[in-house]
Amino acid sequence: MKMRWFFLICMFSGLLAQAQSVPLQWEPVAPGVWKATVGQPDKVDLLTTAGGSPRKEALQKLGEAPFPLPQAECSAEIKEGKVYLRFPLQEEEQLFGLGLQFKTVNRRGQILNLHMDHYQGRDDGRSHAPVPFYVSSSGYGVLINSARYITVYAGTAVRVNSQHPPRVYDRNTEPDWSAQPYSDAVEMLVPAAGTEIYVFAGKNSMEAVQRYNLFNGGGVLPPKWGLGFTHRMPTLSTAAQVKAEATAFNEHGFPLDFIGLEPGWQTKAYPCTFEWDKSRFPDPAAFVKEMQAKGIRLNLWLNPYLSPASSLYSAAKPLSGSHTVWNGLVPDLTLPAAQQLYKNIFKTQHVDIGVSGYKIDEVDGVDSWLWPDVATFPSGTTAEQMRQVYGVMMQRLTTGWFREKGVRTYGLVRASNAGASSFPYVIYNDYYNHRDFITALCNSSFIGVLWTPEVRASKTAEEWLRRMQSACFSPMAMLNAWADGTKPWSFPEVEKQVKDVALLRMQLFPYLYTVFSQYYLEGKPPVRAMNLVEGFSFQHQSQKAALDGTENPYRMALREDVKDQFMLGDDLLVAPMFTGQTTRKVILPQGKWYDFYTGEYVGNGNIIEATPGLDKIPLYVRDGGIIPMIPPVTHTPAPDEQLPLEIRHYGEAESTAVLYDDDGQSYDYQQGKYMQYRLSAKKDKHAKWQGQVVIENKQGLKVAYKNIKWRFMLPESSGR
Amino acid sequence: MKMRWFFLICMFSGLLAQAQSVPLQWEPVAPGVWKATVGQPDKVDLLTTAGGSPRKEALQKLGEAPFPLPQAECSAEIKEGKVYLRFPLQEEEQLFGLGLQFKTVNRRGQILNLHMDHYQGRDDGRSHAPVPFYVSSSGYGVLINSARYITVYAGTAVRVNSQHPPRVYDRNTEPDWSAQPYSDAVEMLVPAAGTEIYVFAGKNSMEAVQRYNLFNGGGVLPPKWGLGFTHRMPTLSTAAQVKAEATAFNEHGFPLDFIGLEPGWQTKAYPCTFEWDKSRFPDPAAFVKEMQAKGIRLNLWLNPYLSPASSLYSAAKPLSGSHTVWNGLVPDLTLPAAQQLYKNIFKTQHVDIGVSGYKIDEVDGVDSWLWPDVATFPSGTTAEQMRQVYGVMMQRLTTGWFREKGVRTYGLVRASNAGASSFPYVIYNDYYNHRDFITALCNSSFIGVLWTPEVRASKTAEEWLRRMQSACFSPMAMLNAWADGTKPWSFPEVEKQVKDVALLRMQLFPYLYTVFSQYYLEGKPPVRAMNLVEGFSFQHQSQKAALDGTENPYRMALREDVKDQFMLGDDLLVAPMFTGQTTRKVILPQGKWYDFYTGEYVGNGNIIEATPGLDKIPLYVRDGGIIPMIPPVTHTPAPDEQLPLEIRHYGEAESTAVLYDDDGQSYDYQQGKYMQYRLSAKKDKHAKWQGQVVIENKQGLKVAYKNIKWRFMLPESSGR
Repeated sequence: MKMRWFFLICMFSGLLAQAQSVPLQWEPVAPGVWKATVGQPDKVDLLTTAGGSPRKEALQKLGEAPFPLPQAECSAEIKEGKVYLRFPLQEEEQLFGLGLQFKTVNRRGQILNLHMDHYQGRDDGRSHAPVPFYVSSSGYGVLINSARYITVYAGTAVRVNSQHPPRVYDRNTEPDWSAQPYSDAVEMLVPAAGTEIYVFAGKNSMEAVQRYNLFNGGGVLPPKWGLGFTHRMPTLSTAAQVKAEATAFNEHGFPLDFIGLEPGWQTKAYPCTFEWDKSRFPDPAAFVKEMQAKGIRLNLWLNPYLSPASSLYSAAKPLSGSHTVWNGLVPDLTLPAAQQLYKNIFKTQHVDIGVSGYKIDEVDGVDSWLWPDVATFPSGTTAEQMRQVYGVMMQRLTTGWFREKGVRTYGLVRASNAGASSFPYVIYNDYYNHRDFITALCNSSFIGVLWTPEVRASKTAEEWLRRMQSACFSPMAMLNAWADGTKPWSFPEVEKQVKDVALLRMQLFPYLYTVFSQYYLEGKPPVRAMNLVEGFSFQHQSQKAALDGTENPYRMALREDVKDQFMLGDDLLVAPMFTGQTTRKVILPQGKWYDFYTGEYVGNGNIIEATPGLDKIPLYVRDGGIIPMIPPVTHTPAPDEQLPLEIRHYGEAESTAVLYDDDGQSYDYQQGKYMQYRLSAKKDKHAKWQGQVVIENKQGLKVAYKNIKWRFMLPESSGR
Repeated sequence: MKMRWFFLICMFSGLLAQAQSVPLQWEPVAPGVWKATVGQPDKVDLLTTAGGSPRKEALQKLGEAPFPLPQAECSAEIKEGKVYLRFPLQEEEQLFGLGLQFKTVNRRGQILNLHMDHYQGRDDGRSHAPVPFYVSSSGYGVLINSARYITVYAGTAVRVNSQHPPRVYDRNTEPDWSAQPYSDAVEMLVPAAGTEIYVFAGKNSMEAVQRYNLFNGGGVLPPKWGLGFTHRMPTLSTAAQVKAEATAFNEHGFPLDFIGLEPGWQTKAYPCTFEWDKSRFPDPAAFVKEMQAKGIRLNLWLNPYLSPASSLYSAAKPLSGSHTVWNGLVPDLTLPAAQQLYKNIFKTQHVDIGVSGYKIDEVDGVDSWLWPDVATFPSGTTAEQMRQVYGVMMQRLTTGWFREKGVRTYGLVRASNAGASSFPYVIYNDYYNHRDFITALCNSSFIGVLWTPEVRASKTAEEWLRRMQSACFSPMAMLNAWADGTKPWSFPEVEKQVKDVALLRMQLFPYLYTVFSQYYLEGKPPVRAMNLVEGFSFQHQSQKAALDGTENPYRMALREDVKDQFMLGDDLLVAPMFTGQTTRKVILPQGKWYDFYTGEYVGNGNIIEATPGLDKIPLYVRDGGIIPMIPPVTHTPAPDEQLPLEIRHYGEAESTAVLYDDDGQSYDYQQGKYMQYRLSAKKDKHAKWQGQVVIENKQGLKVAYKNIKWRFMLPESSGR
């Protein structure tokens, strides 16, 4: 009898608990952006940590929009000090984002525990950028602004009381039985007493991403040198060896804009002192200056964990967490005093002598050497929160120091998160699968981060070339020779081809810089997954698989993503080749497309077979695409340099484009001090192509181009 | 100024928070067993769910022992509603347990998030038995009695204020730098407002495991038929096909004790009705009876998720969770009403007509189809807790129904947890790596669960034979042909060898049954990792690895575990062979060892090379080992059967052993109704070996053996 009473009480309190789920209350915070608050959000969250200010004008330009979801179906509930969230999902929707994953693009049907970590070969949410933001193919985005390990059920869970229940099949007899029945909601568990949630509207998924990026301060515009080629030295290199390396690049006619120094530049590393090792670098200031005179910037490797050998150690100890990383202190960078301590040494040792940027390593994990989740920090920030944002804090701090000096920086980081799109950092890692690197490029575009597929080593000349080709069409073109000292010409049989593609990247500099300016001005990511491209109608496919009692006992459907090609800016479609391929499929969006190299028409909204040979990476330009190019230089343009410009126009459509420029190094562009060339291509009354260049907004800046020439890449059919 | 105040307050509250860490208060709960309580433990925990009663007499027999750890160093702290735990760790300790992992044995240096899930190829804590219990090579065990996703840092984290700090190396210049510096503690994060913690003493790790098992009610003793061979039918098999299969086994002279029916025995499956499909099984009761008359028991597959087609559906709905699994209801089995609902149908449809056991599938995960962590249950039990214990609840319920009928059962389950050692279930899964299956056998022995490496399919006859050999030396010898209908004789070229090893298992029945009786009586697991064996002194080894910028950038040490051989009971060392091997290393514990087949001396505490040929699985017996065997029968002994007994004695040591027996099917043994034959082998005054059998405790039971003969497997050196 007692038992029965207990049971009834349980039942009743259970029903009460379920009844607590209530619709979220939305408050507009910018045009097309809304915020809801559930419970008592943490003091430390993602957006506050990143500290971006919404780019209001740009958001106003995108305009107002209606709330993109049925509000009554976006609900929240707090149970056991955790937030349970639910957002509706239509049957045809695809979902993207939710962290920098490497294997798949469409997240629908996945479960992710968004947890800062080195990527470990599985799209389970552990990632260098576990960004709790998803964007729907239906044109909206949802951000959970919490620095917690959030679990996302991206259309996997089916409620008993679902409004759109899936059909029930019998596995015994019905072959259409599926191990993953249709689910009509995204459900999320935020292990915190409260959280903010943001929704971003869009007329398509790109516009939702734009609003997301603009709300966070817009995307980064790197300094011009950041878009050149970079090379990282073996770890114990000396100043003399670094100079010799620069000379060798020069002798090989290979482009080089900045060199990265690995741990050995410091007196101690792992844990670090952040101080120059004078045996390898006797006069750092003179060395940095001498390199800069050769047009070579310097980037310094570090991880933020402080060596007991550092003079800062005793001052840092009370400002640090309870646990060490590799015996180094973990400063609590939420504390102004800890920030100041690091600023002092970083400024005097690096920034003030002209070092141009950092490579911030190991702020992502790996679990087995990062501070554990039981660590405590003097500010009271939990280990979990600290882990989710440590990389963002390091980005923000270092960026601030360069900003105070008035110079832009561009570096590498191994951990990022929501709100960090304006930081001048690309994510990298130790993973090394070429195909997966390209998938990550696609995925980076949904979540406001930059990713770069670095080249380290290769088994064959073919692999070397294919990897180099991909690297040259990414946010940072990098060879990382820290461990083995490879050079771009280490495979002589492909030296010419490697140089060609590196120089092609240099030629494309005006286009690339313009593409990045869009990231800042409009929030459009420079590299874009095909699913962000208007007119790209490829439908996510599932294929029934065969039952295999051992390999696939649940006969899980095999899903097809488009993850091996991407857009670089509005006009250029990049389709990397992988080792062993002599041919590959390329899916063209709607509209006519042309071969970048020849101007040939290749197709329209269809799947083509590319056979570029070993020398080339397949590149396609949309109809009317305008690609401004400079000669094959070995350094990106210096502030006082004037270079010839070739403007290529592709296809048959009359068109206009903007070519962006600014001083290339300061932050003046953020006060509107940038110029835009309007490039127009049209046919005259004799049907002859004419190109026109008008400077619309000179702002007293210097014109960087001379001898401007148009080249109309007419398809053969037009009788070129 | 404001900022500085804020900072000081943060600092202060941070220090306060750190100061809250206090030593745990231990209360003795059984001889050599202590409990501590931190905070407010959950209502649902692991041991309460399993419901075992400590085997007090057996624990008293093991005796009192001092608390095995420095009490001041076992500390706890509650922060943010979570429990932070810390236990000290000496430099030489190895740690075992922490879930049914498949790749490694020694947990020291690992981080595990103990999370019920299908094993996914990585020892990260996701497992079919995420048991939060570890046992140290120093002879103690620690259990966290919480049904939560517990994170364990098993000697990975290094505190700033460590009492035993690791040496600091410079990675730049010192090759001994390690990515994992020495850590002097196990730290754990229990995401709950409180928990119980148990410590188990031991003079070695085996004794700690024994106390752990005995405290949980002792290990299971299966019915005799459970130790025979079992075969699972293709899913849509009919009654006639099942009978034909039994006949085929008989014709091939292949042993068979029970047959498993896969989903198709039900009217609907995935989700399930638990009701017989009358088109395939027109008269289930008669069918079960007819099979039993042939000496064949029946085991029914199920998962616990209720089909909308079930007559129970509407009654079950208010007793079920908010989410479905494959469109089936998930009954809240903490509710007596839900238990009763299932009992009614399971009893009438299965137990009462003579079905002998279940295979309880998919209670482990996989994430993508299990209820999400945002699911709610009417009892208020959280989704996380429900997930950690659902498999244990199903084991407890089903076991109870058979117990009410007075018959033992023995079945399969895909999820278990702490406290479940007395349940008659072996864990299985869909994973299929033969080597890893053996590692799991080793790991099962630390945590009070049984695991079985089932055979499904093979690419070659060699693989088939090697897998069958392993299966025959495991807790359940099973061929699972659900998907493809393979038979033991499907590879004719090894049919004889497969039959030989299956019959050898049958011959070893008296030994096997005795080994299992030790699990119940003494808490000693039947299959034992070498690390539980006294006199096994193999030291866990780490080897420095080469730096590889791509494959091993942190130059992580490669660790060597002993995970490919194990003990079956006290005397038999099993060293499975894997496909492609013609020879393998076997590590012998201290003492003389002899070949099982020939009696030859093979070594003493050294590493030997086994070259058994394809026909045999290497088996070794310790000096003085006594192995009682019956003839090669095809069914395990029936209650009224008397069989000849050959008692083998190995080596040169005089010895005694116990042979256990009971009625083989009831629970009377738990009231002491079992008999023990004392087997003694000694040399008489003429140095001639003499064997003696004394029945010590007949209890009115029938003597199961006739024509008892001793066989002294004298080594060649003794002039056999």
